Parts: sequence; C-alpha cells; structure tokens
Amino acid sequence: MAGSPRRAAGQRLQLPLLCLLLQGATAILFAVFVRYNPETDAALWHWGNHSHADNEFYFRYPSFQDAHVMVFAGFGFLMAFLQRYGFGGVGFTFLLAAFALQWSTLVQGFLHSTHGGRIHVGVQSMVNADFCAGAVLISFGAVLGRTGPAQLLLMALLETVLFGINEFVLLSLLEVKDAGGSMTIHTFGAYFGLVLSRVLYRPQLEKSKHRQGSIYHSDLFAMIGTIFLWVFWPSFNSAPTVLGDGQHRTALNTYYSLTASTLSTFALSALVGEHGRLDMVHIQNAALAGGVVVGTAGEMMLTPFGALAAGFLAGTVSTLGYKFFTPILEAKFKVQDTCGVHNLHGMPGVLGALLGVLVAGLATHEAYGEGLDSVFPLVAAGRRTATSQAIYQLFGLLVTLTFASVGGGLGGLLLKLPFLSSPADSQCYEDQVYWEVPGEQEEEAQGPLRAEEPDSRA
Amino acid sequence: MAGSPRRAAGQRLQLPLLCLLLQGATAILFAVFVRYNPETDAALWHWGNHSHADNEFYFRYPSFQDAHVMVFAGFGFLMAFLQRYGFGGVGFTFLLAAFALQWSTLVQGFLHSTHGGRIHVGVQSMVNADFCAGAVLISFGAVLGRTGPAQLLLMALLETVLFGINEFVLLSLLEVKDAGGSMTIHTFGAYFGLVLSRVLYRPQLEKSKHRQGSIYHSDLFAMIGTIFLWVFWPSFNSAPTVLGDGQHRTALNTYYSLTASTLSTFALSALVGEHGRLDMVHIQNAALAGGVVVGTAGEMMLTPFGALAAGFLAGTVSTLGYKFFTPILEAKFKVQDTCGVHNLHGMPGVLGALLGVLVAGLATHEAYGEGLDSVFPLVAAGRRTATSQAIYQLFGLLVTLTFASVGGGLGGLLLKLPFLSSPADSQCYEDQVYWEVPGEQEEEAQGPLRAEEPDSRA
Amino acid sequence: MAGSPRRAAGQRLQLPLLCLLLQGATAILFAVFVRYNPETDAALWHWGNHSHADNEFYFRYPSFQDAHVMVFAGFGFLMAFLQRYGFGGVGFTFLLAAFALQWSTLVQGFLHSTHGGRIHVGVQSMVNADFCAGAVLISFGAVLGRTGPAQLLLMALLETVLFGINEFVLLSLLEVKDAGGSMTIHTFGAYFGLVLSRVLYRPQLEKSKHRQGSIYHSDLFAMIGTIFLWVFWPSFNSAPTVLGDGQHRTALNTYYSLTASTLSTFALSALVGEHGRLDMVHIQNAALAGGVVVGTAGEMMLTPFGALAAGFLAGTVSTLGYKFFTPILEAKFKVQDTCGVHNLHGMPGVLGALLGVLVAGLATHEAYGEGLDSVFPLVAAGRRTATSQAIYQLFGLLVTLTFASVGGGLGGLLLKLPFLSSPADSQCYEDQVYWEVPGEQEEEAQGPLRAEEPDSRA
Repeated sequence: MAGSPRRAAGQRLQLPLLCLLLQGATAILFAVFVRYNPETDAALWHWGNHSHADNEFYFRYPSFQDAHVMVFAGFGFLMAFLQRYGFGGVGFTFLLAAFALQWSTLVQGFLHSTHGGRIHVGVQSMVNADFCAGAVLISFGAVLGRTGPAQLLLMALLETVLFGINEFVLLSLLEVKDAGGSMTIHTFGAYFGLVLSRVLYRPQLEKSKHRQGSIYHSDLFAMIGTIFLWVFWPSFNSAPTVLGDGQHRTALNTYYSLTASTLSTFALSALVGEHGRLDMVHIQNAALAGGVVVGTAGEMMLTPFGALAAGFLAGTVSTLGYKFFTPILEAKFKVQDTCGVHNLHGMPGVLGALLGVLVAGLATHEAYGEGLDSVFPLVAAGRRTATSQAIYQLFGLLVTLTFASVGGGLGGLLLKLPFLSSPADSQCYEDQVYWEVPGEQEEEAQGPLRAEEPDSRA
Repeated sequence: MAGSPRRAAGQRLQLPLLCLLLQGATAILFAVFVRYNPETDAALWHWGNHSHADNEFYFRYPSFQDAHVMVFAGFGFLMAFLQRYGFGGVGFTFLLAAFALQWSTLVQGFLHSTHGGRIHVGVQSMVNADFCAGAVLISFGAVLGRTGPAQLLLMALLETVLFGINEFVLLSLLEVKDAGGSMTIHTFGAYFGLVLSRVLYRPQLEKSKHRQGSIYHSDLFAMIGTIFLWVFWPSFNSAPTVLGDGQHRTALNTYYSLTASTLSTFALSALVGEHGRLDMVHIQNAALAGGVVVGTAGEMMLTPFGALAAGFLAGTVSTLGYKFFTPILEAKFKVQDTCGVHNLHGMPGVLGALLGVLVAGLATHEAYGEGLDSVFPLVAAGRRTATSQAIYQLFGLLVTLTFASVGGGLGGLLLKLPFLSSPADSQCYEDQVYWEVPGEQEEEAQGPLRAEEPDSRA
Repeated sequence: MAGSPRRAAGQRLQLPLLCLLLQGATAILFAVFVRYNPETDAALWHWGNHSHADNEFYFRYPSFQDAHVMVFAGFGFLMAFLQRYGFGGVGFTFLLAAFALQWSTLVQGFLHSTHGGRIHVGVQSMVNADFCAGAVLISFGAVLGRTGPAQLLLMALLETVLFGINEFVLLSLLEVKDAGGSMTIHTFGAYFGLVLSRVLYRPQLEKSKHRQGSIYHSDLFAMIGTIFLWVFWPSFNSAPTVLGDGQHRTALNTYYSLTASTLSTFALSALVGEHGRLDMVHIQNAALAGGVVVGTAGEMMLTPFGALAAGFLAGTVSTLGYKFFTPILEAKFKVQDTCGVHNLHGMPGVLGALLGVLVAGLATHEAYGEGLDSVFPLVAAGRRTATSQAIYQLFGLLVTLTFASVGGGLGGLLLKLPFLSSPADSQCYEDQVYWEVPGEQEEEAQGPLRAEEPDSRA
C-alpha cells in the first residue's frame, strides 16, 4: 500500500476490525435487550392459545419477503451498473444492509417497542429494520464508488440512529402517516447522502471519469435490480400498513403509480435523448419514481386516478432531473451523486410528502367511513381536523429535511477522519481497490494500479 | 436520422407522443370509471365490518406477486437472449407490460366488472391485467428485434382489446374453464403475434443474420428469465382459480408438469443436437412448455400422473418444434418468429386446450364430489353434461384461434402504417437504433450505423 | 467423438435415454401410487366442507415458493461462477432438481406418507421434495465441472433414495428435530458429495486449471444466486415447521443468523486477503453459512442473541475453510471440491447439528411453556428428558455422517462405470463438452477441443 507499512497495515485492518467491533457490540446488546415478541415466543404464544391463523406472520411475512428482496437484490444490482464497480455495488450493499438490520433492530427497538426494558422482535420489526436499511442504501447510492467500506459502515452506524429518531418524531410524536416512507426513507436517505457527498466533494474526480459510465452487460445487471424493485414495490409500501383494506389499497395504488412513472419515463427519455434515443439510466431509475411518490399517500384514499397522476409526475420530474439537474448539482452545488438519488429518491420523496399533505387535507368521513379510524385515528377521534393533519404532515417533511441535512453534514465530517481508508481520486469506481478481481492479479502486480492503493487523507 | 429533418423529427417524436397520448387517455378514463372495490375501499370494507383475514388480498396477493415477477422479470430477461438486443428485450417488455396493465384494467373492467357504470379494482383485477400483459409479451416475442417501440405500443393497444373480448366470450359467454390461460393467453398471444409477424414479413432479413444469435452471457441473462418463469408458473396458473383446493391442486399440477417438460426437453435437445450437445434455446424455452400445457386442465382433477404426461408431451413437441418446425415456418410460411413463440406458446397452448377438452369430458361426480360445483358449475347444476362442457371447451379454442388470427392480421396492417418508425432490414436485432448504447457514441458518430437509422416505409 | 463411431453414439445417447427411462419410470409409479391429498382433492376437500382459509396452502405456499426459488435460481446461479461453465452450472442444476422433485416425491412418499398404499401429495410434499433437491445440488457442487449429466442423474437417483432413508431414520425413528436440515440436507449433501468426489479424484486436473477460476461477470451471475439464497433462507428453514410461533420464530432466527455470518465473512475475508482485499468466493458462499447453522436449532428457543452468535461462528469457520482448508483437502485428502461445499454446507452443517444438541439439551418447560409440545413433543409428554433428546440429536448427526459417507462411496463407484461419459481431464469446467456454445461452432470444428471429446474410462 502507499506510505509506510504500518499505515498500510492500519488501512488493511480497518474493515475487519470495524466489522468485528460492530458485530460484537450488537451481539452484546442483543443478549441484554432483545427478546422474542408474543407472536414468536413459544411460551407466550401458546399461553394465549390463539389459532395459528391469527399469527401476524401470515399477514405480513409475504410482503416482508418481497421488501427483503428489494433491499438486497434490488438495490444491490441497481448499484452494479458501473463498468468496474459491480463487486462494490452488490457487495457493499450486502454488507451495509446486513449491519443495518441488526443495528436498527436495536435503535428502533429502544425508541418504539421496549416492554419492561426489553425489545420485542417479530415480523413487524423485521420490516422496520429493512426499511432503515433501504434509507442507508439510498445514501450509499449518492457516494457509490468514492468511499471505502469502513467509511460506509460508519455512515450506516450514524444514519441508522438518526433514521430511527426522525422516524420516531414523525410517527410517534407528530403522528403523521408515512407507511411507505416517502419522508422517512426516501427524502431522509437522499438528502442525508447528498449533504454527506457535498462534504466529501472531490474536485479532481475527472481522473476517474473513464470509469464512471456503464457498459452493455453492467446495464443489464442493473436492470435486474430495477425490475425486482419495480415488481415488489407494492409489497414494500403495504408491508407496514393496517391490515385488510389498508394493505390491499396501498398495494393497488403503488402498482398503478409505477405503471404511470414507467410510461412517462420512456416518453421523457426519448424526448430529451439525442436522435430520440432512450437512455438506460432513466429507465433503470426514473421508472421507479412512482413507487417513491406514493410512499405517504398510498395507504390513503388516493383513488386509482390519483395514483396514475402522481406516478406520471414523479417519472417526469425524475427523468428531467437526470438529464438537466444532476450536471448542475455537481457543477454549481459541488454535490456528486453517482446514482442520481436526488432524482429517484430526493425530489420524488418530497413530492410524495406533499402529496400526502394534499390527500390528508382532503380526508372526509364520507370517503373513509369507519376506515378513517385506521388511516387517520386522530381525525376520526375528532382530536385533529383533516387540515391540521395536513399541516402536521407538512411539518414532518420539514423535520425530515432538517434531520437529513444536519445528519449528512455530521456524517461527512465523520467520514473525513484522516485515518479512514478512501480511494484515491484516480481510483474511484474501481473494484480492484477493495476486491480481488479475477484474472488481474499479475497485471496489477506491477501495473499502474499498484502505485495507487487507497490513500488516507492524513 | 435518414431522410429529411422533418421526417427525422417525426420519427423521434413518435414514441414520446404516443406514450403521453396513451397515458393521458387512460388517466382520464381512470378518473371517470375506475373505483376501489369493496375490499380496497376504506369505507366499503369497514362498513361490512369483516375480519381482516377475510380480505381477498391474503388469498391472492402472494400468487399475484409471483405472476407479476414472471411478466416483468421472466419475460423480460428471457427476451434478452440476443447478443445486441438486451436493452430492447428487457426495456420494451417493461414499457409494453406497464401500458398493458393500465389499458387492460379498463378493457377487462368494462367487459367483466362494472358496477353501476364503474370499474371496481382490487387484487383480482391486478391478476387479470398481468395475464393480459403476458399475452401481449408473447406476441412481442414473435417480432422481437424487428419492430419499433411505437409500433409495439399500437400492437398492445389493439391486442389488449381483442384479448379482453376473446376472454369475455370464452369465460362469460361460453363459460369454458381456462384459469391459467392455455387458450386465452398462450394460444391467443402466440397466433396473434405469428399472424402479425407474417404480415410484417421481411424477405431481406438475412442482412441482420449476424445479430440473430446469442452470445455466452446473453444466454445466461435469458436463463434468469427462464428460471423465474419456471419456479413461479405454479402461482401463475393458480392465481385466479377458486380458493382452497382449487388453488392448491392447480399449483401442484403445474409443478409436476414443469418437471416433466424439463426432463423431456433435455432428452430431446441432446437427441437432436449435433454431437449430442444440448442447445440453450431449447432449455430456455421448451422446458417451460409444461406450464403452458396445464393452463386449462391444471385446476381440474388431472391427477399427478396426468400432469407428468402432459408436461412430457409438451416439452417434446416444443423442442422438436424449435429444431425442425421453426425453419419451415420461415421458409415455407414466411413467418419469422424470433423467440419461437409458436413452439413455447402456440403448440403447447393448443395441446393445453385439447387436454382441457379431454379432462372436462371425463369429469364425474365421483371424482369431484361437492367440488364439481366450483370447477364445473354448469355440470354440477345439471345444465351441461361433461361431454357438452368438453365441446364448449373445444369451441373456445376455435374462437380463440379465430380472434387471434384476424386480430393479428389487423395488427400487422396497423403496424405497416407508412409513417411508423421501424428498423431497417440491416438494423434489426440492434439496440443502437432505439437506445443510447454505452461506449459507442463516437464509433456511431460517423460509423456505418449512422447511415442506417430507422426508416419509414413511405 | 473419441474412439469408434459406435461408442461415440453410445456416449451421445446416454443422457437422452437416461432422461426418458427415468421419466418413464417415475410416470408409471405416479400413475400407480401418487394421489391428491385431502387438501388438494376436490371431492375430499369439499366433503370435509372446510373454510378455504383452513387449507394448508395458505400457510405454507409462500414459504414453499421462496424455497423453490432458492433451489433453482439460488443454487443455479451460484454454480454459474466458473468462467466457462455457466451453462452447466445453471443448466444441470435445472435438470437434476427437476428430476429429484419427481423421484423424491416417490421415495419420501413411500417412507413417510402412504395412506392405503397410496402416496398423498400437497404443498407439504412439495416442500419436502425441494429439500431433497437441495441436498442433491449440494453434492453436485462438490463435483461441478468434472462430471457428465448422465453421471449426475445417476448420482441424483441414488442420493435421493439415501436422503429419504436417512431423513426417515432421523425424523420418524429417532424423532430428532431438523426442520431446516442442518443434518438431513447440508451435512448429508456435503459429505455425500465429498466422498463421491474422493472416489472420482483426478490427479491430472491441473490440465484444466486455467478454467477453474471465475471472470468478472461470472462472479456477478453467481451473486444473483447468493443474494436470492440469502434473502429467502428464512423461508426455507421455516417452510416445514409447526405453524404459528414455530414458523415465525424460525424465520426470525434465520434472518438474524444470516446478518451475522455476513459481517463475519466480510471481516475474515479482508483479514486473510492479500493487501486486505475481499474475495468474492467468500462473499458468495460463507456469508450464507448463517442459514445452514440454524437449520436445526432455528425453530427452538435459540434467542436472537443465539442466532447472531451462531451465524457469526459459521461465517468465520466457513471463510477460514475456503482460505486454508480447501487446499489441504485436495492436497492431503485427494478431495476436489469445486464449490467448496465442505466450507458452506459441511462444517456449518455439523456445527448446526451440534447447536441443535446444545439448545435441545437446554430446553425447559419455563422457556417453551405449552409450546414445548410442538417443538419437543416427547419431552413435553415426559417420554424423554431434554438431555436424552439432546443425545438423540447427536446420534442423528452420526447416522447422517454414516449414510452420507457410505452413500457417497457407492455413488462414486457407480459414476465410475466405464461406459459413462465424463469430461477428459483437460476438458473439465468447459461447457463446450456438453453444450452448443454460441459463436464457437467453427473454431471447435478443427480446434483443439475437437480431439478431446468426452472419453469413457474404458
């Protein structure tokens, strides 16, 4: 490695030691605090002698599994679009998400579901942990290829805590609705990552420009991620909603919204492409914006038409963002955004939050009937008007943007700690820095890469 | 583009304008006609105060999700087998299916499920819409690589209407059984596409011969599609059947039928291959014929042995079709069939319909007991004999073949409209015509392709 | 082919004839013995007039589908990591598993679930058959690239029988618990394959050394397998457990165990890698060891901490196994293990069995309450103490190791039958021996491969 053997050793050991340290810490905390909930514990479940069919497992597990596929296969392969960063895209997604599941079980547990000082876990906590992992991966998308795995784990460590607090403020204190996470997952994850990326801004990045694009087959691997995210998004948004009509309606709205964002993405991509050609970057990403934009309003009485309109708008904004706004973001605002998370999660997330404000404000007893109690309990109980619920929803968005920006700033400073390994400007978007790449050991032995191992910023 | 700037602009704008037009039209129709059904509507569901567990969502959504994966990931990647048409295979599948889901919600809704002039939607309509999308994608497979996206959207526009009418005639007027769609999906989609392909016959296609094959990795991408289609096919066939034993039996029959078509495909592929080698085209496609062939009889008392026998036969016929019949189809009948849909969906679909005729004709009160009412209600009610039900099943096949052939012919004429963009004979099976292909902008700038942009047939 | 035309023909016909013979035999046995069970049979189900919601289909089918994906897509793509054996990895997985599903329906049916001389099939038998297929594919992983498809089918024929007998001895005679198959699937499959590989040891294998590694994109295809195995493993382990808390707890334990094995795998891989680099072989395989190690104890009151600890240990042992033990296994013990199944399934399987011994031995009425009856019925009934149950569990492991070793030895001798086609030492890990490989027909026509077609050992 560059520099003295000691520092090289220090660099080499960062990832393993951090993994072991974090795993050791979560394991101890699990031993002390985490217990089976009454639906997973043999004694508690049978003590209640329920019918097996009542176990929440049967109502939420299929949706959980679909969301679980999205987090690991969906995000993972979508981030494999770079020509030389497929191992990092899929591999670091795998690492970060696995850690986030453990850590956010603890964070969310302490904040939401302690019983007698113990955290109770079951399928619902599994869904919540996967949602937090999703936010972490969105932030990862902003800095994909420009950060080392140890940096990413520290980012996940901090982000998971702030995600949990923000979610607690919104859902428990402000009592806003955000089942699919337009605010808590997408807006939070995107702006946390973008501000963090701003702090880590690399002016010399053009040194890696030749590696920033995709190649034919890496685009097809990315489409694996896109398609699985697209087909399972209805399960993602409906996984934590109230049972019965709530899950059913949320899945249906998401399904329609995605079809509309797909059509608008193809339309806009061809419209703005040279020679009217379609751009894979738009199809891989903007077509998914329909899932993001109904993350808040999907469980409400959005109406099928409302779902189409929202999806259409999201796909349009997202595609135009990739074409016109991403370059400005880097040139003017010094924010480098590898996966364009601002276009897929940032703007559509904010739109989704505003859609939630609108639909909540329009809620009436006629439209929801007895169901109003399960969608807007405070409004049903007469403790809030629909308008005040709408104002709370809006306030939730502002809180989220604040937590995300401050958190992302702190995260950026944390990742700049001088001893943390990070790829050199000329080594970004290159798997060989952190991975054994098949068939290239010898070339690399005396090749140009040899000289440019990860550097510390010291 | 080739020709005058104006026509070039016209060509460039075809896809975006058509997408926007179609999306605008479906959105307006959704606003006027589409409403949540009593299981997705907050007021209606709670008014009935059901137990959440009764919501149809819990009985059909997992099967729906599996079928949804098949349509987008299964068909999409299976159609990515061409060396230079992976973007088009996955991407146009994505576009066509997304549009078909919206459009067939309207068409099927008007025909099947209007209540007070309104279309009621829920998980069942989602399943039906995905089934129609499946038929459209089968037709797409016949013309893969030889049509432009605007042409394909117009094909989907027409085919979805005819699919809905044919399905209505079979299921509602003739009251034949076809849960998994051997007739309504596979036979209809295949022959619609084949007749359409006949109308679009290109005598000069050998100009693109060098792009018609696969390469090593494109075959592996195609296997992603094959495997997901194969594992989820039991869910596809059972998604719309009666609950309880109906779904259970259909899934079981499909599962066994697919194992048999896989074994017969490997056997026949090695038998007819030079040096006894296996051909990936057979494995990717014919091994799936077992799912097609039990699309009608799968919910009947086919028996596990019957499922094996049917699957074995379908795999055999399909493999032999790829080896011997596809060349004849092009040479003698002037029908070009890129994916060999005649072998995977056409012949196995017809066999499946005939199997349905046979098994329906053998239905007895002994074999079905009280269950006869849910599989063959008219026979149970004494309004039809098993034999007359069988005759109706056979008539359903003839109706389907008629609708498919006439519809495919009309579709072909529609797609020949002179102003519609379509790849030149030398540009078929080439992504670069409609997609920005990474790393080839410069080459293409003054390269041979430059001169041979999509032409209009004017 | 090498040698006389007749033998060449004999070689060519081995696979097709064996497929047809096996399919014919299973079809006849299905006709005579296999019947729908009371939950899939129209008459039996309606005779009982149950509510549809009671049908076991709704409790087990979603988990079955996830396990089904693991067997075909998970194992298939994980075995596509070799640079020139992707067709064989995915394709032969497809063939072997399809056959094993049929054959083990019969074998397991005769041993477990005959009613009046008939085998009753339904979703439970589908799960069991997929589990047997999993064991066969584990053994396949040990000899991947060094055996012909006809040899592999004979291996599956024998292994399925021994798998069924071993499973019967453990679950029905010894009444040990092993829901996720740490013993019956992983330990059995691994040691069966390793002993078989020992018998087929090839001292001249370095002739194929240049094909034994992966390339960049083959590693990404393998990650498709890894990710789907990882996300669905909780469904695999919980698919056959008791309903309610049993399935719920098993899924939760597996979920946590896998997160821990992922973290320990990344830690150890970087720790032992040169320059601290991560090795894709470890990530693709060892990260999954957490699913293997809780295959026995996952349904017990392992506690979430116990799941993390077990997963951490399994990932560690597995990664170290790949790095240090696999070379010794070949050099000292003459056992060639293409996929390192000893590291992913062998050692973690044994660890999982021992974990089961431990947790069973610690079972108390306090911890399980009324649930003890569903996890350890004999202990609940007072017919065994927890300690004696633990001893039975340990005995189950020894029985499994014995069946696997003896069976693998017999299997090796069977596969050495002189007339069976097998790739030459210089032709191992090469798809072109058994597959038409696109774009290489001409080269192969007079190329070096031409001379080295599969040889018989005669």
